[in-house]
Amino acid sequence: MRILVTNDDGIDSAGIYALVQAMRRLGDVVVVAPDRQQSAVGHALTVASPLRATKVHRDGSFYGWAINGTPADCVKLGVSTLLDHRPDMVVSGINHGSNTSVNAIYSGTVSAATEGTLMGIPSMAVSLATFDVTADMALAAEVAYDVASRLFDLQLPAGTLLNVNVPPIARVDFKGLRVTRQGRSEWKDAYDVRTDPQGKPYYWLTGEFVTVREVEDADDLVVKDGWAAITPIHYELTNFAVLEMLKTTFV
Amino acid sequence: MRILVTNDDGIDSAGIYALVQAMRRLGDVVVVAPDRQQSAVGHALTVASPLRATKVHRDGSFYGWAINGTPADCVKLGVSTLLDHRPDMVVSGINHGSNTSVNAIYSGTVSAATEGTLMGIPSMAVSLATFDVTADMALAAEVAYDVASRLFDLQLPAGTLLNVNVPPIARVDFKGLRVTRQGRSEWKDAYDVRTDPQGKPYYWLTGEFVTVREVEDADDLVVKDGWAAITPIHYELTNFAVLEMLKTTFV
Repeated sequence: MRILVTNDDGIDSAGIYALVQAMRRLGDVVVVAPDRQQSAVGHALTVASPLRATKVHRDGSFYGWAINGTPADCVKLGVSTLLDHRPDMVVSGINHGSNTSVNAIYSGTVSAATEGTLMGIPSMAVSLATFDVTADMALAAEVAYDVASRLFDLQLPAGTLLNVNVPPIARVDFKGLRVTRQGRSEWKDAYDVRTDPQGKPYYWLTGEFVTVREVEDADDLVVKDGWAAITPIHYELTNFAVLEMLKTTFV
Repeated sequence: MRILVTNDDGIDSAGIYALVQAMRRLGDVVVVAPDRQQSAVGHALTVASPLRATKVHRDGSFYGWAINGTPADCVKLGVSTLLDHRPDMVVSGINHGSNTSVNAIYSGTVSAATEGTLMGIPSMAVSLATFDVTADMALAAEVAYDVASRLFDLQLPAGTLLNVNVPPIARVDFKGLRVTRQGRSEWKDAYDVRTDPQGKPYYWLTGEFVTVREVEDADDLVVKDGWAAITPIHYELTNFAVLEMLKTTFV
């Protein structure tokens, strides 16, 4: 099994290192990851400038490539150009911070797995639901191993990936895996308005994540309850119910 | 009617100017747009640095704000902080280049309209299916006006927007509006590998857009046929069919 590992926190993050160790139990791992932090880049691609790929070694052996681009760039460039062999699996993470609910659409971690599945490669994203950069990655790495070991045989349809979110709790409190849907929780946006030394305003994104309990088995709620949430997501964006309604309007 | 206009080609593009003129027939227009080209930024947000907002005038009167950020930043900052009143509508475009099929997930133009609808504001994205920057925007502006004039009364569910794509053809050849679904056409990725003056490689994204005719009423195919495609898209990403299948696997 050949596994491409990437993330959006950058090739030097603790999360990707933990993920690489876990994936090596399943096969040959090559890392193609951003050379720096790329959080909240969404599904961005670098088109207006060229990419560079730098070979990286860790613990005395070849680890992979660092790319001056986004997570989606890493998967595209890796699979199409850098790797000697097409990977059997793309695994993205372990992200610092939850990618449940609406966060999935802003997530570079998820977008990397989306690129993988759009290329027809079984793909998953793994996130640990805390922004604490010193958080223990052991449970998330174990969950990643558990899900990845079954991913290839699931034969998910092309375009669908698994978005896995793990609670930041001790092993003893962990309840196990749950299959979930994308939750409805959302950001209530706010900007912190500050004044620079020249007296001019600047705006810093803050905002509050508001829990919405509208749906059963929502990924964010399940994670809060101590489960690892596995949400199958896809990029079939059409709202078919609205499509039918619109056909009576636009005739 | 108060209308927020944005785009991803930047506040100085021909497309946004044409859109502003068209939207002024419907109400008061304020522009909040990136200060430079932001194509293929996907749903990126600026979180690691602050935003600046510069007031911009055009034709002797207030036009709006230029932001050093992404289209999604513009809508978030505009609605939450810059505008005196909450807009009744968010209209994004007119983009140079098609945002049909898989392109919707890379599109800053679409992501801006997504932010609008996530905030509960009726929203739409408009794209002209050509990269020719000298292309005539008149037909696309007329289509934008036609769809926008009905958008408010459609009462789309929060989270759903209209993704409108217009063919780059003469008025006389235009067939009208069609309600469509997101097509299945896709990019076959390739990178142009070049060598810099120091002998080091760099990689430039190229690739070929491959037409896939799998589904009826696909947005890209309808546009090729001379219609303007109206696709209702949403960010309910859960693949419910796969979710049911997974429940038997992860128990």
